[in-house]
This record gives sequence, C-alpha cells and structure tokens, in this order.
Amino acid sequence: MGLAGQVAIIGTGTVKFGENFHQSYTDMVYEAGTAAMADAGVEPGRIQAGWLGTYEPLLYGYEGNAGTFVGDTLNLLPIPITRVAAYCASGMEAVRNAALAVASGEYDLVLAVGAEKMREVPSRGSLVTQAVERGHPVLCKGRTPPGMFALLATRYFKEYGIDEEALGHVAVKNHFHGSLNPKAHFQKPITLEQHARAPKVAEPLGLYDCCPTTDGAAACILTRADLAPRFTDRYVLIRGIAYSVAAGYWNTQFDPAWDFTSFRSTREAAAAAYRMAGVRDPFKEIDVAECHDCFTITEIINYEDLGLCRPGEGAKLAVGGVTRLGGDLPVNTSGGLKSCGHPVGASGVRMINNIVDQLLGRAGRMQVKDARTGLAHTLGGPGAVACVAVLSQP
Amino acid sequence: MGLAGQVAIIGTGTVKFGENFHQSYTDMVYEAGTAAMADAGVEPGRIQAGWLGTYEPLLYGYEGNAGTFVGDTLNLLPIPITRVAAYCASGMEAVRNAALAVASGEYDLVLAVGAEKMREVPSRGSLVTQAVERGHPVLCKGRTPPGMFALLATRYFKEYGIDEEALGHVAVKNHFHGSLNPKAHFQKPITLEQHARAPKVAEPLGLYDCCPTTDGAAACILTRADLAPRFTDRYVLIRGIAYSVAAGYWNTQFDPAWDFTSFRSTREAAAAAYRMAGVRDPFKEIDVAECHDCFTITEIINYEDLGLCRPGEGAKLAVGGVTRLGGDLPVNTSGGLKSCGHPVGASGVRMINNIVDQLLGRAGRMQVKDARTGLAHTLGGPGAVACVAVLSQP
Repeated sequence: MGLAGQVAIIGTGTVKFGENFHQSYTDMVYEAGTAAMADAGVEPGRIQAGWLGTYEPLLYGYEGNAGTFVGDTLNLLPIPITRVAAYCASGMEAVRNAALAVASGEYDLVLAVGAEKMREVPSRGSLVTQAVERGHPVLCKGRTPPGMFALLATRYFKEYGIDEEALGHVAVKNHFHGSLNPKAHFQKPITLEQHARAPKVAEPLGLYDCCPTTDGAAACILTRADLAPRFTDRYVLIRGIAYSVAAGYWNTQFDPAWDFTSFRSTREAAAAAYRMAGVRDPFKEIDVAECHDCFTITEIINYEDLGLCRPGEGAKLAVGGVTRLGGDLPVNTSGGLKSCGHPVGASGVRMINNIVDQLLGRAGRMQVKDARTGLAHTLGGPGAVACVAVLSQP
Repeated sequence: MGLAGQVAIIGTGTVKFGENFHQSYTDMVYEAGTAAMADAGVEPGRIQAGWLGTYEPLLYGYEGNAGTFVGDTLNLLPIPITRVAAYCASGMEAVRNAALAVASGEYDLVLAVGAEKMREVPSRGSLVTQAVERGHPVLCKGRTPPGMFALLATRYFKEYGIDEEALGHVAVKNHFHGSLNPKAHFQKPITLEQHARAPKVAEPLGLYDCCPTTDGAAACILTRADLAPRFTDRYVLIRGIAYSVAAGYWNTQFDPAWDFTSFRSTREAAAAAYRMAGVRDPFKEIDVAECHDCFTITEIINYEDLGLCRPGEGAKLAVGGVTRLGGDLPVNTSGGLKSCGHPVGASGVRMINNIVDQLLGRAGRMQVKDARTGLAHTLGGPGAVACVAVLSQP
C-alpha cells in the first residue's frame, strides 16, 4: 500500500537550540524525547521502536553513534533503536525510516529523534578531517561549507543577474522569523543595512548569509493513521516523504553537467514526495514550508528546486515578501537554519516539528493562518542528498 | 500486517574476506552489490532503494558515512540509500530496515549492503579513540575487545566449570568450517593442541579464540514475497528479524544485575524474532545457524542466549560435535567470525548470505543436508545490542 497517508505524527518535542553548554548530547535527547512523548500522551513503555539521526558522533565522544544513546537515555530498553546518518538530512531520514516501519504494520508506535552536539567540541578539526577524505582532488584551502556555497552564489549572480541584496532579503526575513521563535538560536531581527555591512565569510557570502554552529535535538512520535485518533485529536498525516542520493559526496561539484545553480537531489526528492502526496502545483498546494537555508543563497535555489517558482525566479519570492510571514507561501517561519542554527542531525526533525505546529495551529507568533498542508526539506552532503516531506491535516 | 513472511531475499553477493589491500571500500561495495544484482537477475536501474550498514567510516577516510558511497559506486543515483550504524550489528540492521521498507509496500525491490575496511587504516588508534569516550569510568588499559570478553570467559569458567579446552573445540570447529569456505579470511584447520599452545591475547583467551581484523563487504536483494517468483525460483523468506538495544554502550558491564555469562540483547532479539517467525523450539526448528563468534566464549554464550540449550550447557554443544557440520545443528558453517573475519558492517549481511546459500542448497562443501530453516545473529556494542533473523525456504 505504501506509506502515503498511512502514518501520523501525534507528538513533537524540540529543545531550545543554541550554544547549550549546560546540556550534554544525551541531556538534549532526553529533553526532546520526553517532551515528544508527553505531547503525544504516551508513556515510554508503549514505544515499540525508534530511529535516531545523528551525523557526526565523533564530534562528541561518539555519543549518538548508535541507538544505545536513545534507548539508554530515555529508558526504552530493550526495544530496537536504529541510527541513521545522511549528512545534513540525517534527522529527516530518521523520520522517513520510522514512517516506513510504521507503514509496514510491524510497529504501531515509534519515536524519531535527531540530535547533534556542535559546540564545545573540536568541530573545526573534524570538518578538516572530512575534507582530507582520500581520493578527491579538490581538497584545498577555502573548501569549507561557506566556501563551497559561495561558488553557487557567484555563479547564480552571474546567471540570473541578482546580487548580495537579494540574499539580504532572505537573511532579514529569516532573522525576523527567528525573533518570533522562542526556540531559535538567534532571536534578533536584522536590517538590510546590517546585512550589507557585515564582514564577508566567503565572498560574496557575509556573516548574515551563514547559519551558525548550534547544539540541538528534536523528536516526534509516529503511529498508524488509523490508530492516531485513539491517542489524540491533534495529529498530522505524512502524505509523502522521500529521500534522494543524487550524487557522490563531492561529486556534485565534479559533474560536468552541474551548473552550480540547482541541486538534483532536491528536485528528485521533491518529485518523489509530491508523487506520493498527490501534489501537482506545490506553490498553490503548500501553505507553509521549512527548507534548508544553510546559506541564504541555498534558500533561493531551494525555492526553484522545490518547484515553488521557475529557475532564476527564486530571489523574487524573497524580495517580494511572498515567503515572509503574511505572504502567499511563508518559508522558514521558524527562522530556518539561519536563526535556529543547524545541529546537523536535529534539523530535519526540528523542521518536521515546526510544520506539525503550523498545521495544528499552535505555532504561536510564527503561525501561518489556515495552514493545512506543509513541506519540510533538508539538503546534505553537500548537495548530494536531500529529503522532502509533505505533511497535512488529516 | 508486519514483515514476517512478507519479504524475500532473491540474490546475494559476498566478496572474498581478508586483508584486501587490492580493494578500496568502494571496490568491495561495487563487487558485492554487482554480484547480488547478478544473482537476482536484476539490473541496477530496477533497484528502488537501498540500505548500507557501516560502523566506522572514520577508519577509512569517511567512506561509508552515508548512502552516497553505495548510490554513486553502484550507479544507483538518484534513489534513496539509507546508512545505518549499530556497532557490530550494522549489517543486519541494514537488512532489517530494508525488509521493513519492503513490507511497507513503498518499495518492491531494494538492496542491502554491509561493508567495512578494517586493514590499511589506523584502526587501533580509532578503537582507542572510542575507548576515551567521555563519562565512562572503566577506561583503563586492557579494555580492548579481547580484554572485555576475557572477563566473560573467566566468569563463565568459574560459574559452569569449563576451561580453555571447551573454547578450543569452538575454535577447531570454526577453523575446520573455514577451510571449506573459499571466501573465508582463514581457510586452514587447526588442532586442539595448536589452540592450547597459542599465545594468550587476554587471559584466558588465546590467539585462536579471537576473530581477526578483516576487510569485507556483502550485499543482498530483497523483494516482496509475492513478487519473488517473478524474479527467480531460488529465493528465501524472512520469517522474522528483530533488533534489540538492551543496554547503553558500556552499561552492560555496569548493570549490577549482569552476571557476565549472558547477553540480554541476544535473548530479547531472539525472543522477538522467534515470535515473528512462529519458532517455539529453536533447537528443533533451526537447521543451520550463523552466530556472532567474535571470541570463542561468545559462541558458547550465544548458544544459550539463542535458546539452543540451557544456561551452562553451551560448551557441550561444541565439545559434543552437535554444532559441527554433520551434527544436529551446525553453527557457523562459514567458519564464523573466527575464520571469515569480522569487517564490522559486513558481517551481518555475510551471515544472511551464508544462510541463504544453505537454504538454497548452494553452500558447496559447507552444505548442511536438508536445511530448511536457518538463523543469523549478530551481537554488538559490546553486548548492548543484538539482531536475530530467521530465514526459511518458501
């Protein structure tokens, strides 16, 4: 039968994202998981299986390298807890695999958790370690995430005739949205002038074009759609969720056909998720979206890859206020990675949870009026993989 | 409906295990995946999704840290490939998650791959890195895998009155079996005298009590049981497959109730897998088994935890020849981890593949006569997690 419409999310929990020096990795998993179970009104003893998304356990003494760090922490022993890793899409991959397992009929009530400890760890050293991966010739100074995405911005500018100011509109929007989100890492609005005057990180990307380095965890509880009303009258359906591995880790940049202005992974994952969900015109049918704005240029490219507008028209959506709260299709009302930060394994689950809040009408000052269908999107590796989920009211 | 009996394995591929200096990680993934697809008679373009089990990508330049290393290598782009990590049970977790996805009806034809590069890498350094995981007080010299399992042997000897000679019978059996397996790392029989005279690695465990450090990869192709006959008349059903996270990573050893002679993870995973498969008396119903003999003592404990005999009686099965080829319940006819070696992510898939070969009557000199139902078991983390699969002829 497949999973489309067969799986419901009945509870969510997200910790305050930030520099959580007061919390260990497992402290965050405990808080997010406990909150999600409380929201669903289920005791830990009823959970039958779990999935954990964490990308780089080596950053924090190997915590998160397997399901033990959820089972033990949340007192879920001896149930199965599967750890998945999919670069920046790790969290949404946890939700997707949990949904597949529920759809199989093998488990009625499961947990998905995403978590990452990014601060108070030798993260810079570890990124460097990744960069010395053998066999890839483009390993040179500057090949940091900002450096890589700066290449996209440069090419996009040349191809479509926009400049830094368009990026500024994304930054201003997402910082404004972040100011409405009590769980965001950054909760202060910025101005276009501040964006323009900020120091450059990797030309043309400045400080306000880049998401920060952040600790966080988020969790949600899934059940079969037909069982959801037994638990709660506040739930959301997964209409479609799809993951695409569209390139090797570094190969996005090697592909001679790649034009630096679009990601095949997002296009493929979106096409598959829309097919599952029966979405034909995403701009009209989606009421609210969270997408992977690791950098401001990425959000503009995401608009196009997600089919919300045509290639080259992404900047208009931001500049014209279409994707701002109050616009036709608000994007990243949470503040996005830009304001929430990007604890790698946590982000995909955090996005799902934000969309659930929107569809349940409990998004507080971030609320989009009459949001019935929402979308969440994560991109990873860098650009090699993407995951897209379409959620809706029952 | 659940997955029991709903999923079939229609093709397998396993590389020659060993010190594969001539092969990179992706070379091995390519060889195993290509062989599995050829065995199933399917082209790469028909595979709809994949799962990869690799535990320590940091050992080999991060290869295997996400599904890109399968999708790119086997030309499966842009389908989803999920990477799972579950310590030594990583490979079987890949098969389990693949089976859940097939059972969901979302995918008809999927791939599961397990791979690990253990040689030609700074593996010792990385194990040390694991051991300095923060917050665990038992970090001292000797806390290597042999050191940990030596504690079990010592306690088991005291509790049940056996000695090194019983371990020798396991080693002799598995080295004999390995001599029949052209894909084993070690293919030479040993004698009880050689076992007894071998240098100690961690008292009372000697050289022939420990599995070697090995490179390897294995893959299998899964489909829905009702679709299997469209592909082939040689296939095997997954009657049950279950994973248990029964303790925190180090907590097995901390649990005051733990007596060092049994693993709850194996008992829980076996109970769940038997429930799914409808197995009531495993010793009578299972015809052939692969279990996680990382050390000879572990195999004896596994017999008991898997319910093949009562606690304290495991050694008798080995000493009495019951688990030798030709005995009532041959165990590790492949040679086990002892002779095949233990490329961490690969082992669980390799075991599944060995059982498939047995049930299809194509196990060559390892063949168990009239094998109709088989079992595969991996233990990991160390002892914190376990996965058990029950396979049978259709």
